[in-house]
Amino acid sequence: MRHMHEEDPLDRSRFPLDSWRLVETQHRSDDLGTTETLFSLGNGYLGMRANPEEGRDAHTHGTFINGFHETWQIRHAEDAYGFAKTGQTIVNVPDAKVIKLYVDDEPLLLSVADLVEYERALDFREGMLRRHIVWRTPSGKLVRIDTTRMVSFTERHLALMTFEVTMLQGDAPVVISSQVINRADGRDEYHKPTDEASAGFDPRKAADFGHRVLEPQGDWHSERRALIGYKCANSGMTIGVGADHEIETENKFEALIDTEPDMAKKVYRIEAKEGVPIRVTKAVAYHTSRYVPVRELFDRCRRTLDRVRENGFKHYEDAQVVWLEDFWKGSDVRIAEHPSIQQATRWCIYQLAQAAARADQTGVAAKGVSGSGYEGHYFWDTDVYVVPFLIYSNPWMARNALRFRYNILDKARERATELTLRGALFPWRTITGDEASAYYAAGTAQYHINADVAYAFSKYEAATGDTDFMFRDGAEVLAETARMWADLGFWRVNKEKTFHIHSVTGPDEYTTVVNNNLFTNVMARANLRHASELLRQMRIVDPEAYDRLARRIDLRDEEIVEWEACARGMYIPWDETLQVHPQDEHFLERELWDVRATPVSKRPLLLHYHPLVIYRYQVLKQADVVLALFLQGDQFSLEEKRRNFDYYDPITTGDSTLSAVVQSIIAAEVGYDELALRYFLHGLFVDLADLHRNTSDGVHIASAGGVWNSLVYGFGGFRDHEGVYSFDPRLPVDWPELSFPLRLRGNLLAVTVTEEQISFRILEGEGPVEVVVRGEAVHVPTGETVEVALAHHGPRQVDDPDQTVVGEYRSDGTLITADVPSLDLPGSDSGLLGLDPL
Amino acid sequence: MRHMHEEDPLDRSRFPLDSWRLVETQHRSDDLGTTETLFSLGNGYLGMRANPEEGRDAHTHGTFINGFHETWQIRHAEDAYGFAKTGQTIVNVPDAKVIKLYVDDEPLLLSVADLVEYERALDFREGMLRRHIVWRTPSGKLVRIDTTRMVSFTERHLALMTFEVTMLQGDAPVVISSQVINRADGRDEYHKPTDEASAGFDPRKAADFGHRVLEPQGDWHSERRALIGYKCANSGMTIGVGADHEIETENKFEALIDTEPDMAKKVYRIEAKEGVPIRVTKAVAYHTSRYVPVRELFDRCRRTLDRVRENGFKHYEDAQVVWLEDFWKGSDVRIAEHPSIQQATRWCIYQLAQAAARADQTGVAAKGVSGSGYEGHYFWDTDVYVVPFLIYSNPWMARNALRFRYNILDKARERATELTLRGALFPWRTITGDEASAYYAAGTAQYHINADVAYAFSKYEAATGDTDFMFRDGAEVLAETARMWADLGFWRVNKEKTFHIHSVTGPDEYTTVVNNNLFTNVMARANLRHASELLRQMRIVDPEAYDRLARRIDLRDEEIVEWEACARGMYIPWDETLQVHPQDEHFLERELWDVRATPVSKRPLLLHYHPLVIYRYQVLKQADVVLALFLQGDQFSLEEKRRNFDYYDPITTGDSTLSAVVQSIIAAEVGYDELALRYFLHGLFVDLADLHRNTSDGVHIASAGGVWNSLVYGFGGFRDHEGVYSFDPRLPVDWPELSFPLRLRGNLLAVTVTEEQISFRILEGEGPVEVVVRGEAVHVPTGETVEVALAHHGPRQVDDPDQTVVGEYRSDGTLITADVPSLDLPGSDSGLLGLDPL
Repeated sequence: MRHMHEEDPLDRSRFPLDSWRLVETQHRSDDLGTTETLFSLGNGYLGMRANPEEGRDAHTHGTFINGFHETWQIRHAEDAYGFAKTGQTIVNVPDAKVIKLYVDDEPLLLSVADLVEYERALDFREGMLRRHIVWRTPSGKLVRIDTTRMVSFTERHLALMTFEVTMLQGDAPVVISSQVINRADGRDEYHKPTDEASAGFDPRKAADFGHRVLEPQGDWHSERRALIGYKCANSGMTIGVGADHEIETENKFEALIDTEPDMAKKVYRIEAKEGVPIRVTKAVAYHTSRYVPVRELFDRCRRTLDRVRENGFKHYEDAQVVWLEDFWKGSDVRIAEHPSIQQATRWCIYQLAQAAARADQTGVAAKGVSGSGYEGHYFWDTDVYVVPFLIYSNPWMARNALRFRYNILDKARERATELTLRGALFPWRTITGDEASAYYAAGTAQYHINADVAYAFSKYEAATGDTDFMFRDGAEVLAETARMWADLGFWRVNKEKTFHIHSVTGPDEYTTVVNNNLFTNVMARANLRHASELLRQMRIVDPEAYDRLARRIDLRDEEIVEWEACARGMYIPWDETLQVHPQDEHFLERELWDVRATPVSKRPLLLHYHPLVIYRYQVLKQADVVLALFLQGDQFSLEEKRRNFDYYDPITTGDSTLSAVVQSIIAAEVGYDELALRYFLHGLFVDLADLHRNTSDGVHIASAGGVWNSLVYGFGGFRDHEGVYSFDPRLPVDWPELSFPLRLRGNLLAVTVTEEQISFRILEGEGPVEVVVRGEAVHVPTGETVEVALAHHGPRQVDDPDQTVVGEYRSDGTLITADVPSLDLPGSDSGLLGLDPL
Repeated sequence: MRHMHEEDPLDRSRFPLDSWRLVETQHRSDDLGTTETLFSLGNGYLGMRANPEEGRDAHTHGTFINGFHETWQIRHAEDAYGFAKTGQTIVNVPDAKVIKLYVDDEPLLLSVADLVEYERALDFREGMLRRHIVWRTPSGKLVRIDTTRMVSFTERHLALMTFEVTMLQGDAPVVISSQVINRADGRDEYHKPTDEASAGFDPRKAADFGHRVLEPQGDWHSERRALIGYKCANSGMTIGVGADHEIETENKFEALIDTEPDMAKKVYRIEAKEGVPIRVTKAVAYHTSRYVPVRELFDRCRRTLDRVRENGFKHYEDAQVVWLEDFWKGSDVRIAEHPSIQQATRWCIYQLAQAAARADQTGVAAKGVSGSGYEGHYFWDTDVYVVPFLIYSNPWMARNALRFRYNILDKARERATELTLRGALFPWRTITGDEASAYYAAGTAQYHINADVAYAFSKYEAATGDTDFMFRDGAEVLAETARMWADLGFWRVNKEKTFHIHSVTGPDEYTTVVNNNLFTNVMARANLRHASELLRQMRIVDPEAYDRLARRIDLRDEEIVEWEACARGMYIPWDETLQVHPQDEHFLERELWDVRATPVSKRPLLLHYHPLVIYRYQVLKQADVVLALFLQGDQFSLEEKRRNFDYYDPITTGDSTLSAVVQSIIAAEVGYDELALRYFLHGLFVDLADLHRNTSDGVHIASAGGVWNSLVYGFGGFRDHEGVYSFDPRLPVDWPELSFPLRLRGNLLAVTVTEEQISFRILEGEGPVEVVVRGEAVHVPTGETVEVALAHHGPRQVDDPDQTVVGEYRSDGTLITADVPSLDLPGSDSGLLGLDPL
């Protein structure tokens, strides 16, 4: 009998188990940053951190609009040609969450209030945050407060709040003061770091602006409605915020409303009688633009709010439930008999909806709209970690994410020119499409972004068969990215003539600007191949469209031939002695970092060592070769995968949250089933247990996407190379059943894996669906459940029960370090034997 | 008969030949930046650009004090652990050069004045800038103006100016307005770029501050004296400036004096009669401090000025001549029958005096005190390009320069700790001793700075025999630098066990963060060896001092053994096929940059290509391997030198001014005599002909030092490896005679080289001096001229007369590009033969 390490890192006395909700039953002030993120709301466009209605104590009062940013002049301490010039940082937009409560003129303040009852819950099927409080006021009266907050998936500009107060014991004067407040420009008197990670140096946080960001462009109010608007000082982006309030109560009350440049305020003064409820509703509309003046945005806000007045709150709350029902139909991964894992999985997948659903044709930021970490920038996270989930669950969202890439293709062409390259080079991090990465070694040098984008397009094509979109937008993206690779690399002749790519950085940022990074070369090869395949196909199927494209981007036939040659000749580093793929051509020449000897206090390495120190060693921030083994799995044998995993796993710190989920997938494939589960659990609880100590900056969206990947690709054993849907499951030992839906070319396929079998059923669509289970073709017609017996769940390796996972944190925050296999390489300061004495 | 390319790039109708002076006979406004630098004055402490007395039109009104700097918070667009935090930038201190002249209320303004006579001359023996003008005023009167300006070598805080005006035709009211003006804080209304290079992006220029730098700390005046003082806002450094004025004239006059926070002013209103001269003298004292308040600096200014009042101007002018006589005795390199080369050589050597003479124990900045280029920072330039000259000409100046390194050793230890290294790591660029390089790839990664410093100490020891200094200061520096190398590198076992140094940048900044840079490894090896040799010697000779040192820096005997092992095991990259030393372990794997195909408009590369582009190629900013061939010449055979030179010369752009002089030395050694001369001429005229288009930023001091190196080491064939003074001359074909002095262990040796012989004579000192000429020992006693016949001047290669020098600019500014030898490597986009057609 093996030992499973399934731990439940959540304190269940505070966060009781609930498979469709995240519930909190105690308010705590010492982890506000984390809970603000965990209970945050968003729809991919508008995001609201889970600050309590009362405002005040907070880690960050955050409200974000995807892509709404300020620009600033980057002043490089030492500049060089082509360095990014313009910083882009997401702006904390006016905060409409605030509804303050005073009873007997005493403010409700969670940090000090005597809370007789407290519950807060984020419901993944309702799409709503609810809070219930019974408060004993300082004068001894009992007050019940029930609130709801919702950011609408169906109306992306809309947030709805309700605030109900009932005096349970005694009468009292009650004041409810609802606000919309500009916190970006110094009005945020309560913004103070409360989490330990907030203090000190961390390059992953957004920087402060040195100037007033939101310039007031007008404020207006009527009895019921308040509007305030701003323009960003540098970027010129505009925002209008409108709020409508209503009150329902049998109590006597009076209402006041006012607006000023940095604040809109609606105040109700109520003579509250015991047992007589007060219900205030607040509908808020946010409209933003790059060009349109604020007065036009005010009109848009009015239209949104007028509709709410006509339809009523319930209409949107019902629509929210219907929308989520449809979302979950394509997304819900079920893990039987593991309620903690089930809950955490649903939380992660729900975060993907909150980050991506209505991003529409902007990107999906590293933190979604849940925080300002990484300055609200879009990275490869979307293309590699999030888009696959979208493709198989909600393909229209995937299409939107790909449209974003197409929309910034012109900027990517400009950037390539600036880098003296043909074709297009996508920015490593950006909001506007311009490269915002000021540190080229871990930024611009990550040329693999091009291949990641191409990968997402190719994957989308294979899953959806949406040839129209590929011929219209995809072909141009694939062609321009392939061009860049053909120009970036060069031919070398040693024994044979091979195509080399120098001075690049792979996903692992603990080595930078290396030659022939395996991940980059393998991904670039796929990029080149898919570009030539798509264009050759297009040339036959739709010659007119092909000709139009060729004329527009000046594409010559010989280029396609060149891409194929580059792909065929692509140099793939391989070490004969160790029988592994070096992460880059010279990776194995580096000294080994002794991960075991690195104390917890020095993790993550990037916060404690100069880059020049880290770069000298064989030590990984995150999976790099191992990620290639997953994404381009058909290019490697199982034995290669095992050997590579054995080599890289012990030197992978997992300092990046992008790492564990990928380690889990390959561990599962090569048979380290326990390890796979433990990596999966690490990824699953990255935010829920704040394992990387920076959940306060926002949700790790890529890791959440990775959780879905770990379940479906890792344990489900799903693969989709070259448009073939194959399954080779790796169910963890004590998991009785894993089931998940997949949208495949218009069909919704339910997949269920147990120890003994895998079964398929088409839930929606015309069918049939053709899949492959362990090499055997399986035909799945509609209306039938097709069962395939499973003799095993992969070549399970006998793990050393004491083996530990590098970079895994225990729930108590201590770090688990791994045993480094003793390679026959000398250490840096040892081995000085046989020297002459002085 | 061979063609010599000795060109004279100066316009001799404007700058007539004069072997001891730089003379200008026409004023021009279109190259003010260049002439301000060429005629600048300095003594290593205080520097004054050659702005005309009248102020107004200027490229930069510049007055600089070595090390007087402001600090600022570096805001990295993306920060990382250990990145430099504090910027250090030299400050433009209050300008005391201004003496404005009005005749009939018309200002003298050189840009528009009708100048009947004009001459300006910098005299290398007087140490004085003189100007003579006859001006026809707009009303038709003739005025003679004779001025002098001197920055004293003997009183480093002192500058003296005289201003003589005589009406040659007609009487007139004359106003002479002398000022001291703070230009750093917005009072510099006339600062506008006039040179073409001033516009646009150039990371080599100093950045503007964003705040008021000089905070007034008081101003004071009496009838004769004015004082103003400031404190730097951030660095807290203080400065006091005092000026005394006197007037001598038979004309009637009145005098006014006033001071305000940003200006001190002395005005004379004179009723000038024809033929009656007016002479105004202005003595200026600058005192600065890191700690002392301004009132104390005022007292120091008073003392300096009081002495001038007592001694008179002539005292200091005479002392200046005497000082320079002594300077030239150890410094004057004579090139017979080439007056243009002679003049330029003296100008260069004079610049070395102006940059280093009274730097005392601060560093010598890249631009000396002649401009703010490179922010007034100290680099390795001093240790490698300037100190050797100082050692052999004025060893006390060398000792001061080395003391500067000793003084910042504690900071270097702190920096090593920050980089997780033992020992000390000197800052790549600094004023205070803290690392100011914010771009680590071309900054902190240049660990070779440690070996460069150690090299300077070792060289000083060998030339002077100053063991006391070495035991007191040198040993500690050598030990701490050696420690750093032993910790930075690591042992690898392939066929044999070798010591490797990874992730470093060599002198050539067109590739960065490479493994086993040849220059670095060879220099580190010397560092390790010299450290162990010195300490072993010290242990025997002065065991008490050794024990004290060992205790203080916790030095264990085993460390010395370890250094020797590291030196013995040092990996030296070598390519069997090409028979060259790769610049770094993987340098030859890079693609070749087609220097020939790079248009002039794209030079220097660093201003036109992203670093990531440049780094991918075999292309050099400056000599790297070739510099190692020179500095560690006894570690390479002549054949290796020739092969390496042949390989690297065609891919060296010479975009750095540090390159040509070194290329010249090795070209001379291996027998490319014409090429050696042309490289020498390029280095010689870098500033005088503004070949790099940025002389306006200040004198290229390292290049000036390189000129001396080229003459003495290159053509003179002098070498000093391991304390042996050897000669193997390489006199250019049409040079009849080259002679130079060398101070060797207390003796002043005159060396004269002709086609037929080399001769030696001891001019000062007890003698004898032992030298080696082409392997033969030569004994030089006092009082005797020893002549050694020369059969040849090296293995002169038959040059291709059409061969050109990469990176050499013609005097018309066009670039000469070289023929790249056709190496058998495929190009990046060529070689795609035999592909299938589409």
